[in-house]
Amino acid sequence: MADASLLRELRGDRDPAAAPSVWFMRQAGRSLPEYRALREGTTMLDSCLRPDMAAEITVQPVRRHRVDAGIFFSDIVVPVRVAGLGVEIRSGVGPVVEHPLRTEADIDALPVLGDDYEAGLEPIREAVRRTVAELGTTPLIGFAGAPFTVASYLVEGGPSRDHLRTRALMRDRPELWARLAAWVAELSGRFLRAQVLAGASAVQLFDSWVGSLGAAQYLEHVQQHSAAALAHVADLPVPRIHFGVGAAHLLPEMHAAGATVMGVDHRLPLDRALELLPAGTPLQGNIDPAVLFTAEEARFAEARAVLAAGAAAPGHVVNLGHGVPPETDPQVLTDLVAFLHAQGGARA
Amino acid sequence: MADASLLRELRGDRDPAAAPSVWFMRQAGRSLPEYRALREGTTMLDSCLRPDMAAEITVQPVRRHRVDAGIFFSDIVVPVRVAGLGVEIRSGVGPVVEHPLRTEADIDALPVLGDDYEAGLEPIREAVRRTVAELGTTPLIGFAGAPFTVASYLVEGGPSRDHLRTRALMRDRPELWARLAAWVAELSGRFLRAQVLAGASAVQLFDSWVGSLGAAQYLEHVQQHSAAALAHVADLPVPRIHFGVGAAHLLPEMHAAGATVMGVDHRLPLDRALELLPAGTPLQGNIDPAVLFTAEEARFAEARAVLAAGAAAPGHVVNLGHGVPPETDPQVLTDLVAFLHAQGGARA
Repeated sequence: MADASLLRELRGDRDPAAAPSVWFMRQAGRSLPEYRALREGTTMLDSCLRPDMAAEITVQPVRRHRVDAGIFFSDIVVPVRVAGLGVEIRSGVGPVVEHPLRTEADIDALPVLGDDYEAGLEPIREAVRRTVAELGTTPLIGFAGAPFTVASYLVEGGPSRDHLRTRALMRDRPELWARLAAWVAELSGRFLRAQVLAGASAVQLFDSWVGSLGAAQYLEHVQQHSAAALAHVADLPVPRIHFGVGAAHLLPEMHAAGATVMGVDHRLPLDRALELLPAGTPLQGNIDPAVLFTAEEARFAEARAVLAAGAAAPGHVVNLGHGVPPETDPQVLTDLVAFLHAQGGARA
Repeated sequence: MADASLLRELRGDRDPAAAPSVWFMRQAGRSLPEYRALREGTTMLDSCLRPDMAAEITVQPVRRHRVDAGIFFSDIVVPVRVAGLGVEIRSGVGPVVEHPLRTEADIDALPVLGDDYEAGLEPIREAVRRTVAELGTTPLIGFAGAPFTVASYLVEGGPSRDHLRTRALMRDRPELWARLAAWVAELSGRFLRAQVLAGASAVQLFDSWVGSLGAAQYLEHVQQHSAAALAHVADLPVPRIHFGVGAAHLLPEMHAAGATVMGVDHRLPLDRALELLPAGTPLQGNIDPAVLFTAEEARFAEARAVLAAGAAAPGHVVNLGHGVPPETDPQVLTDLVAFLHAQGGARA
């Protein structure tokens, strides 16, 4: 299969002759005019739950940029909505939860994730099937939010800078926190599994805000729940990518949650990441998104530096160190993909 | 001098019999009702430039909480205003700059920092003199923003999550960036020096957003400017504290900019910080602000853990791992200070 070199990189089995593989976090979405046109008149969460739209949006950046994977178009709170909780995505704000979870009664009232939830995931499975059919030999990466990040939205009620209520809850009421985080782990784990069973070739568990925790809190209150989410797909033959922002101080701990590939943000050079991780860990990352706003020279210099730093890994999929900023010129991404592919194999 | 134990900790010359020393970043400000009453009808920046108000606001938390130092009440953009640039602090937003600096012409137009600037700092000197007189034996810590953080406001025009324009500028136009950062270094360095000459016993250089940089960018584009800012007080007999948020991956590099004490945020345990820094580096930090919102038991457990982790340092001043959140109950801080002081000496 011509396009499987991305999967070989993710498995740590790089084809030395292959060109670098690349995709971009948040490649589907607001930076693309065809996305903005399609989304017109449909809310974010509705578009995620309409199989035709989710599939088309997922394919758009593959078609335009010729990236080596699709990332399933969704949002970390989509499974929250499927489970029946009131949540919406407000433009310019982010996910907003109707009834933030603060008390024992709130946790008691969380719905059991049974057949209704599985049935509710049918639009996701259908969207994945359509996407995979459309993508052909290009692999699709499944998507879910990690327990800490999803739970922080549920507890805070929306985006927050320091996640103080969430982090206070885990220290103050560890048993309540554990119940909430376990619920989210099942929610996200089943969401991932549904995508893989419908055809996704790899998964990525996003823990956007986990970097606000120290290692002690992570190990005591979070790692086991991320592990539970990833365990939902551990029996399936798919690489499990795990990524957090500003989480250089947690890299080995996050890997030990059951990831097989570590996504690294732009703050930590890939060669340093390799030193921190068990030998043989494939990496994903980590072009600084700031270079999307520089002249091409600085951008390509950064891309070359990232390739060089990742060359010592047994597998390396190029990505940004964070999601594509909405104001990015799409042509910049298209050209960056072409530049990376032109680097050819044997780049170490 | 009874209260000099904080200064001994900062110098790495701990008195083994002394109780822990403590102050809190952002201890002066919105968490205090007496602050909100005094500020009524005065803008933030005007209050910083009125010596009577700045002095009173600086003293308020010392009086109420019995912390072991005052931190001079100011804002990182106060010297920007003194230099004549249009800047204001919008409630709920933060510093907003009238004309963001984006082009070579913008940098060319930056005012020379000469006698006018020194004269403009007179309200600062007067406020420091009044504060020091009022504080008596309690030391005052001077305050300034580091070049990267201050410059990021000037370039972005206000707060931003990822500082993309600023980080693109340093890669794309390194010579322009260097001129801007050098200007800010002089601005902040002179601001610090004015405070020390007027009576401050230590300084803290805040680099709130530096954690968004990788080490390579920090070393190439930022470290020398932070060093230039700190060099303005290097001939004076005052400890130089340096602090960044989410900057665990830059700790030795920031220390090497000329700090004598490293402030550490709540993400990195102090014993880990000691391993990363040159032997003998005194530390400041790093109680997780999340415990300000838990029951007392979890809060005091965290305080004890921080004391234990800092005991191996030759000096350790207790602080939060980030600023006091505005919604903090002030009594919680008062009780935390009393708890820390009750731990007594010889705590290692």
